[in-house]
This record gives sequence, structure tokens and C-alpha cells, in this order.
Amino acid sequence: MKILIIGAAGMVGQKFVARLCADAELGGQAIDALRLYDIVPPELPDARFPVETGAGDLSVPGEAERLVADRPDVIFHLAAVVSGEAETDFDKGYRINLEGTQRLFEAVRALQYMPRLVFSSSIAVFGAPFPEKIGDEFLSAPLSSYGTQKACCELLLADYSRKGFFDGLAIRLPTVVVRPGRPNKAASGFFSNILREPLAGKEAVLPVSRDVRHWLVSPRTAAGFLVHAATIDTQAVGPRRALTMPGVSVTVAEMIAALDRVAGENRSALIREAPDELVDRLVSGWPRDFNAERATKLGFVADGSIDEIIRIHIDEEMGGKLG
Amino acid sequence: MKILIIGAAGMVGQKFVARLCADAELGGQAIDALRLYDIVPPELPDARFPVETGAGDLSVPGEAERLVADRPDVIFHLAAVVSGEAETDFDKGYRINLEGTQRLFEAVRALQYMPRLVFSSSIAVFGAPFPEKIGDEFLSAPLSSYGTQKACCELLLADYSRKGFFDGLAIRLPTVVVRPGRPNKAASGFFSNILREPLAGKEAVLPVSRDVRHWLVSPRTAAGFLVHAATIDTQAVGPRRALTMPGVSVTVAEMIAALDRVAGENRSALIREAPDELVDRLVSGWPRDFNAERATKLGFVADGSIDEIIRIHIDEEMGGKLG
Repeated sequence: MKILIIGAAGMVGQKFVARLCADAELGGQAIDALRLYDIVPPELPDARFPVETGAGDLSVPGEAERLVADRPDVIFHLAAVVSGEAETDFDKGYRINLEGTQRLFEAVRALQYMPRLVFSSSIAVFGAPFPEKIGDEFLSAPLSSYGTQKACCELLLADYSRKGFFDGLAIRLPTVVVRPGRPNKAASGFFSNILREPLAGKEAVLPVSRDVRHWLVSPRTAAGFLVHAATIDTQAVGPRRALTMPGVSVTVAEMIAALDRVAGENRSALIREAPDELVDRLVSGWPRDFNAERATKLGFVADGSIDEIIRIHIDEEMGGKLG
Repeated sequence: MKILIIGAAGMVGQKFVARLCADAELGGQAIDALRLYDIVPPELPDARFPVETGAGDLSVPGEAERLVADRPDVIFHLAAVVSGEAETDFDKGYRINLEGTQRLFEAVRALQYMPRLVFSSSIAVFGAPFPEKIGDEFLSAPLSSYGTQKACCELLLADYSRKGFFDGLAIRLPTVVVRPGRPNKAASGFFSNILREPLAGKEAVLPVSRDVRHWLVSPRTAAGFLVHAATIDTQAVGPRRALTMPGVSVTVAEMIAALDRVAGENRSALIREAPDELVDRLVSGWPRDFNAERATKLGFVADGSIDEIIRIHIDEEMGGKLG
């Protein structure tokens, strides 16, 4: 089995590559070749099968055709200009997130074969106002260019799948927590910062109120969603090919309580409240909770709790030891 | 006030042009110039203001820029490859219905002004299964390439409007009945045929069962929706810029009963039942009824009844006299 991962250098991409290299198979089929692609060169992982890495811009004419020329059996498209950048650089966001995806879809269609194509979408396709729990039949009414681009790609993926050009699945990932690495300036970054930094013995800033509720998944479980999306029977999915992934819905207060439960009571003392009106306004427009019924029926399983999400971070990123 | 109508040669386009020429104003402002554009040359109407007509393909590079160069105050974009053709000619459908619209949006954005832009969308953005009455928060899950293209354009229009590139409104028209002219092969054509032909004393074919329910609007009311969409306060609309228009939900049996009420009992005897499995299967995937609450609150008003829709046809297309 040949696999192509576009966006392999990103956080979820890296987790997913590590998982594939450990498994050496996907859906019971041995991996024969893995191609990793991103705007920056992905790291070459340890693997028992050939891995090729490459860097480039998917939106450049000819690039998508080149990437799929050897007809990978499964294509993962995880690459995107992130939400903040898509908002400030309108042209770049549309070029990479919409046109790049369209070019990929067209390149696959031109080859007239039927690979599985897994696309990472986002809960940013939803915009306020929404019900406390968003169901599978709720409209996509994004309030960002990023969400608009993802929603358009979902529609295109469903149409190309319906026409039999490929066998696509779009999975809407919850916000991935705990992101490893350093604090970043993404508006959603604090959801990771307030856990990762105190776990490492460092101070973190909380820019929103403690009753903010959000929808989370661990990097490990997000990678597992990609595996599952690549291997399930899409007959059972039907023509609606965009699935909201299950997640853990928690308030910031619950996250902080879990931090103290898992790591000891002194940890949350490292969180400094510094309300930021802009972040607060942004976050208030984000989904809080979902009824991810379709995905759950199709066998996608969320993390068990926010405690488990924290333990996964300690296990995978800190060698099991607190800082 | 300068007005541009793209797709002016179509059935709704022609009705709308006639309305504008009769009114000579839009939203209380006198019309100074009207430009009509379509893939075929629109007819030059009688008007008390200058009218320019032109033909071309909106998806050809440079065409959209040329059309909006004189900064029309209101732009109506009604042009589309129809549902059936978009399904059989995938490339043409995407080129005209999606890429052409994107080119128009980009051309307007480049001029950095804020025209009102009214886009005619369709209830084809909805795909089965759906509730008996589809509400304003129901997802767009089209089951055709045409519906996919319309849904993508709706998302783009909302994003361009949110960013302040233009002031857009997408209106999802019900199926327009009674279409004047000759019977056509569109799958939805029978909804018009079974009224128009008997009214003219001719036989019509009914390919589906009499309990099929659908969502209808008269050409006159559809043209009125365009006027209203061009003149309402979009502050009251908010960021969700796609509106399901109100319509009349009736079964075929109710349409036939209305035909006899309006035109006399012998008329429905001209309807010959000839079940067509393909049409029946297609139509079973179409929406039947809506709760068009948002549009209704914003002042869009449907036809009063199917009887009224029939009388509008007799009035406007038959000079008030039955055939």
C-alpha cells in the first residue's frame, strides 16, 4: 500500500506519521511506501518501509499532479494555512486552502482511479449562534475565511466522491490539546498553554474567563481518527462525507481542575489570568459542544476525559515525568 | 443608480428586467443605467433609461473585470449552467457556476467599493434525507454538482461580505412555476408543464405520483424577491447571507385541483400519467417544504396559493385568456 501525506510536517501530521511508522500497516495492509509532503521539508522518520519526503506549494500548477502521479492508495490532505493567517492574508488563504485542495482533487480525478482521500477539516466551519450542542445536521456558517475554505472543500470532496472520482472523507477535528512545543500566538493556543506550561513548571497566561467551554482532542486520538477515516467502509457513511469528530467538551475551569488532579494542586497556581478582550470575543464565537452522533456510530472514539488528554501529553511529550 | 444583471436572458432574468423597466427605480433611487449580460445576447427592453446588452462567458479571464469596471451600484448574478447540464458536464458546471462566480467576486473586490450583490442560489443546496419542513439552520448537503456549486458560492459570498468586499445576499429560489414557453426536458419541467399545457388546451405528461410535494414560486414573485434582496438593510440579515425564500408547498394533486378550480374541471383531463422511474427517483431527493422564517421576517413574501400562481401565469403569459 502506497500512502501520501500532504501536510506531514504539521503537529497532527507528525503524530500521524509516527503512528503509521509504528504500525507499518493501515487497515490490515502492509505499507509499501510513504510519501511525506509539506511547505517545509518533513522530517524523515524511522520506518521499516521506504519513506520519501518533499517540500513545495500544493497550489502551484503541476505540483498536485506530480504528487499523485504514482497513484497512492490513500491520500491524507492535512495541509492548510492556519486560521489567523487565512484571515489576515485573504489571497494566500484561498490560494492554499481552497485552490490547492481543488488542484489536488482535480489531479486525482484526472488519473481515473479510486483512492481513499482523507481531508482534515475543522469545527471552524461552524459559526455562532449555535445550539449548546451542535448536531450533525447543523448548517456550516463559518465566521472566518479559514472556516469558509474548509466548508467549501468539504462540499467539493462530497461531490467528487459522489461522482466516483475518489472515495473521500472529511473529518472535522476538535481543537488539538495539548499541543507540544512553545506557546504560540494562535487565538486557541491558550487551551494548550494553560496545561503544557504548568506541567513543565512554567507560568501560563489565561486570556479568557474560566467558564469558556470548548471541544478538545489529544494529538494521539486525532492521529487515530485519521487511521480510522482511511479504513472504514464509506458505504456506511453515505453521501454526506463531512463528519464532526467526537471530542471532550470541557470548561477552562474543568481543565484547570484536571491539571491539579493529574499533576498536583500547586500546578494551577502557575496560571495567571490576563483577560484579553480580543481573544475573548473570538473564542465566544467558537463551538462549545457537539453531538457527534454519526462519527460515533461509525466507530470514531474520543479521549475518555480531559484527565486522559493531560496524561497522554505527559506520556508522549514528557517521557512520563512532570517538569 | 447603475445596475448590472448577469444572466439577464434567463426566464427569471427576463421577468426581472421587465419589472425594473416598469419601475424605473430600485429602492427609491431612479435607475440611470442598466447593463444586461448573458451567454446569449439578452433582448433589449423598452426603458426610460439607457440599457446596454452584451453576451459572453463570465468564466473567461478579464470578462468579470470588464463587466464591473464602471462600478455598478447593484449587481445581480443570476447566470448558471442548469442542474442537468452541470451534472453531465462536470467541468463546464464548475467553470461557469463556481469559477465564473469567483471571478466576479474577485473583480468586485479589486475595485474596493461596496456594491450590493444579489446572487440567485437554489434549494438544490439541500439533499435528502431532510425533515418534512427544512428550517434555516439545516445543513447544505447537496446531491448534485449544481447544488454543490451553489452552496460553495453562498459560502464565498458570505465571506466576501463579512470582509467588506461587497454587500452580498444569496437567495435560494423555490422551483419557478409556471415557466412560460414550451415543455423542456429539465427533470423539474413537469411542475410547469402540467399547468401551462392544459391552460393552453394541450396535453401534458405527469411522470411522478400525485402525492409528490414541492416548493414553488411564480416568476413574478421571484422577480420581486430580487428587488427586495437588493433593497433590504443587510445589517438585519447578519453574517449568514444565504436565505431560503418563502414558497408555496403543494402536492401534485393539489396543483391539479387548483388547475380545475381556476380554469374549469375539464382542464386536468388533459394530464396524462406516464410514470418515469428516473424522474421519480430524482424528485424524491428534492425538498418538499420549508420553514423560511428568516426570509419571512426580513419581508420576503411568497405567493398566496397555487391558485394565485396559476392566475399570474394566465395574466402575464396568456393575456388573461385561457387557450
